[in-house]
Amino acid sequence: MARTIDLNADLGEGVGDDDAMLTVVTSANVACGFHAGSPTILAQTCRAAQERGVAIGAQVSYPDREGFGRRYMAMNPDDLRSDIVYQIGALAALASSTGARVTYVKPHGALYNTVVGDEEQAAAIVEAVRSVNPELAIMGLPGAVVLELARDAGLPIITEAFADRGYRADGTLVPRSEAGALLTDSAEIARRVVELVTTGTIAAVDGSTITVDAESICLHGDTPGAVEHARATRDALITAGVDLAPITR
Amino acid sequence: MARTIDLNADLGEGVGDDDAMLTVVTSANVACGFHAGSPTILAQTCRAAQERGVAIGAQVSYPDREGFGRRYMAMNPDDLRSDIVYQIGALAALASSTGARVTYVKPHGALYNTVVGDEEQAAAIVEAVRSVNPELAIMGLPGAVVLELARDAGLPIITEAFADRGYRADGTLVPRSEAGALLTDSAEIARRVVELVTTGTIAAVDGSTITVDAESICLHGDTPGAVEHARATRDALITAGVDLAPITR
Amino acid sequence: MARTIDLNADLGEGVGDDDAMLTVVTSANVACGFHAGSPTILAQTCRAAQERGVAIGAQVSYPDREGFGRRYMAMNPDDLRSDIVYQIGALAALASSTGARVTYVKPHGALYNTVVGDEEQAAAIVEAVRSVNPELAIMGLPGAVVLELARDAGLPIITEAFADRGYRADGTLVPRSEAGALLTDSAEIARRVVELVTTGTIAAVDGSTITVDAESICLHGDTPGAVEHARATRDALITAGVDLAPITR
Amino acid sequence: MARTIDLNADLGEGVGDDDAMLTVVTSANVACGFHAGSPTILAQTCRAAQERGVAIGAQVSYPDREGFGRRYMAMNPDDLRSDIVYQIGALAALASSTGARVTYVKPHGALYNTVVGDEEQAAAIVEAVRSVNPELAIMGLPGAVVLELARDAGLPIITEAFADRGYRADGTLVPRSEAGALLTDSAEIARRVVELVTTGTIAAVDGSTITVDAESICLHGDTPGAVEHARATRDALITAGVDLAPITR
Repeated sequence: MARTIDLNADLGEGVGDDDAMLTVVTSANVACGFHAGSPTILAQTCRAAQERGVAIGAQVSYPDREGFGRRYMAMNPDDLRSDIVYQIGALAALASSTGARVTYVKPHGALYNTVVGDEEQAAAIVEAVRSVNPELAIMGLPGAVVLELARDAGLPIITEAFADRGYRADGTLVPRSEAGALLTDSAEIARRVVELVTTGTIAAVDGSTITVDAESICLHGDTPGAVEHARATRDALITAGVDLAPITR
Repeated sequence: MARTIDLNADLGEGVGDDDAMLTVVTSANVACGFHAGSPTILAQTCRAAQERGVAIGAQVSYPDREGFGRRYMAMNPDDLRSDIVYQIGALAALASSTGARVTYVKPHGALYNTVVGDEEQAAAIVEAVRSVNPELAIMGLPGAVVLELARDAGLPIITEAFADRGYRADGTLVPRSEAGALLTDSAEIARRVVELVTTGTIAAVDGSTITVDAESICLHGDTPGAVEHARATRDALITAGVDLAPITR
Repeated sequence: MARTIDLNADLGEGVGDDDAMLTVVTSANVACGFHAGSPTILAQTCRAAQERGVAIGAQVSYPDREGFGRRYMAMNPDDLRSDIVYQIGALAALASSTGARVTYVKPHGALYNTVVGDEEQAAAIVEAVRSVNPELAIMGLPGAVVLELARDAGLPIITEAFADRGYRADGTLVPRSEAGALLTDSAEIARRVVELVTTGTIAAVDGSTITVDAESICLHGDTPGAVEHARATRDALITAGVDLAPITR
Repeated sequence: MARTIDLNADLGEGVGDDDAMLTVVTSANVACGFHAGSPTILAQTCRAAQERGVAIGAQVSYPDREGFGRRYMAMNPDDLRSDIVYQIGALAALASSTGARVTYVKPHGALYNTVVGDEEQAAAIVEAVRSVNPELAIMGLPGAVVLELARDAGLPIITEAFADRGYRADGTLVPRSEAGALLTDSAEIARRVVELVTTGTIAAVDGSTITVDAESICLHGDTPGAVEHARATRDALITAGVDLAPITR
């Protein structure tokens, strides 16, 4: 089982306590201005991440600031690809200007969910990343179409699990509208992450034990108690002898 | 006197006839989305320029789509620098994804005029360009503070003259509110550009002859008769034995 | 059969020849800034329409300037309703400040198509219009869910037909991907509109004759030949003795 | 001296604790989407204000979300007037759709400061307000040009003082770059506001006593300790026998 794990969280969105989260995570999903974040904030976030040895990912989004990128948009592949290239390029330049660099790409919000199953939009993202820099990894849900297509295209991929979400017996997340979707107790969140990282399994909402393959754990940064949950998780992992480090290839 | 000259025009703004202008110019100032242009349009413009051997410049702007970048904004240097880095990075990635590359940066609209004299904003632009890629040239008005600072910082610079603008005896442009500011006759525009390129001098609005140092001629692409003026200018230069080519270093 | 008809077109979008179209139409669908148009342009468009006795409709859109409102967005009803209220209020104030007034609302682009069948988004639009001003009419496709819900809510409705689109035997439009979707001959467009207005019927793409119920004819303003088509249609209607006038109630 | 005073604060900006501030203030300056705020948030803020009997003002801004409206923009009067009309209309419709109404207009950020002295931009605002609804008051700094022009145009005006800002002997605010600009002690802030409201005078930064004419007190809602300062001020005023109420005319 994994004795090293990456911890990632969304940063640069102007919500949550970025400074505190940067002391916990090993990878920062930095907004690119399409759902949140001004260039100055994004540059500062990249610099701060770099100073702490935290890896930087471009958190690309639908062009939807009003809706914080949380609404599905029926974009054609050309437009989506161009939007993704634009965002990665913008953030990479901001990172580079502070001596840092972007090493992975993570779709945000509705786009994240869409490319789990939508082949056309997933392909647009893979093509965008490949055309900008084929050494960039794509981070996503294990089994997501976007990761399969990325692998086929020879791109590195990073699978992730969610610290504070319930899982169903089939390995999918419990929808937010159902009981058990969201965990809110820091100790329980920490205990589950340690179980997942050290055994590769986790208890599903029906009590069964399922296998979850994840190289990174997503910590939410903007929910109530977010920093507390994150710190508890980090501390529990260290206590369990797990090394925390960004993914490198 | 110069026997080779660069012809530049603004493209990717969704106004004017880009296809026609691309058959005339040797350098395309491509919008970066802050005053005009969607990522898809910008990528297409970069590809079309590349296919024709036209050089690509990032036409960076204040963040003002509503006003097409034509309004001065009192931005602090940090915000301006980050905005410029963001725009250059975004366009460079779009260009790169189509096999092209950005070779220079030209401020647009109100920003262009501001950095003729505003040292703080000019320094922010120079610092932005330098931090992204010190091989990028900055294009501007001869004598502009932004060009002086660029030269001090070791960046390449490109000076330009305006094909369809009147000049005053001191070498500055006749303000648009005054008589003689704008030339509208294709033949006269072409004749003046040939004079400027072949002799390094031009007739000022008061009849005196002045020296204008320019490595590139700016052709406006969105005024009435723009394409006609541009073609007449190009033809007259070729007839006069002048070579047309983008700036390379 | 109708001896009076309304002619509508999209204006204030910064594309097409608004001045020319304003001499042809009796109703102007004025953009509200969410897919196109700056406040100054919108105010000028309202003033120009008012001066010519042309009715003013608020052409409301998804918040998608990058995509010109042409992309479906999965907006929740609260957000959509608020966005529609915001747009109507903004345009109504601009109209009012020039002595004009908005008399109807027409969804634009992807939103127009969505509320033909999507009950939730259609209901959000009806609720938005009702809460702002229940005397505002909603313009749409005959049979669209949004019109049914509007009628149920006691709002005036305006049905429209398309001058340059082919119809299928079931009364729906021929999809743009199929043959016969778009008519491009001015004389044919004009002839079909006269037939539709004077007989209430039109030839479908399969040769059958179908009934189309429409109080307004939509003239496209931004396609090649748009103004020519529009003028030919207007002239043919007048020649046929049809009165042209905005809808009043 | 005033025995009734209005307390105002900025709301709907997505920063600060709006719910808490709504229990303190009697007037809410609600963002209009140009510097902050989505239509849904703005509608909710209007409804919440209405339910608490808090007056609603349209906090109009330069079109500058990236800079939160804090940067001067050299807008021409036509564009500024249209932008202000657009914003007031949008917010008024949102308010109206929830059974509330806008009763005043307050410029935000850089625009607030500009119209203290810039006659052209001040006139644009006054003209915008007058053309939308001449019963709307304009709130601003005592002596500001925008208030003088509003009075000349027959518009109601509301003067305000700042609870947490130091004053100079000439009645102007101590610039933020100087010592004494910002007060941070709740008790001192409360004491000064009571002094100002009950005596019409306040101690300037040089120790002299100056007269400040204000019908409303601006409480900042997004600074550290904002809610605490606001509550202390409210409590102290009530203890001093001052009535708290929105301005009505």
